[in-house]
Amino acid sequence: MLKPEILDPQGQAVQRALPRLGFDGISDVRQGKRFELEVDGPVDEAALARIHDLAESFLANTVIEDFTIRVEEVAEAAK
Amino acid sequence: MLKPEILDPQGQAVQRALPRLGFDGISDVRQGKRFELEVDGPVDEAALARIHDLAESFLANTVIEDFTIRVEEVAEAAK
Repeated sequence: MLKPEILDPQGQAVQRALPRLGFDGISDVRQGKRFELEVDGPVDEAALARIHDLAESFLANTVIEDFTIRVEEVAEAAK
Repeated sequence: MLKPEILDPQGQAVQRALPRLGFDGISDVRQGKRFELEVDGPVDEAALARIHDLAESFLANTVIEDFTIRVEEVAEAAK
């Protein structure tokens, strides 16, 4: 996501459009990117550290963007 | 996120670049969008239902995209 101090014109455009579309009560909208990585093997400390590096160096532009990493289990059946 | 059956060239490009950049063990990358909405008042069932409608009708293109909604508390101090 863009850092809080960085202007987000896309998010603002969405926010301004909402009352017109009948949706009130949303005080702020910010738009960002999301990457889903599928990891081979266990997602242990080492894997998470590598993914943190990867996100920091290639996926996010850390001059203007923050990022968070979240681990989600994939159901065995869906693999 | 793009539905699993929809081709994601951006994600594929990232995935193909990773080994070259020294990151192995990532079997799939998909790229999507993320919106952070700040809601006035309590995020109750009714508010969530409205946000679901909003996401379905305006934020996502449900022909090619899936979406999930997640509620996050904002720390009082950060408000």
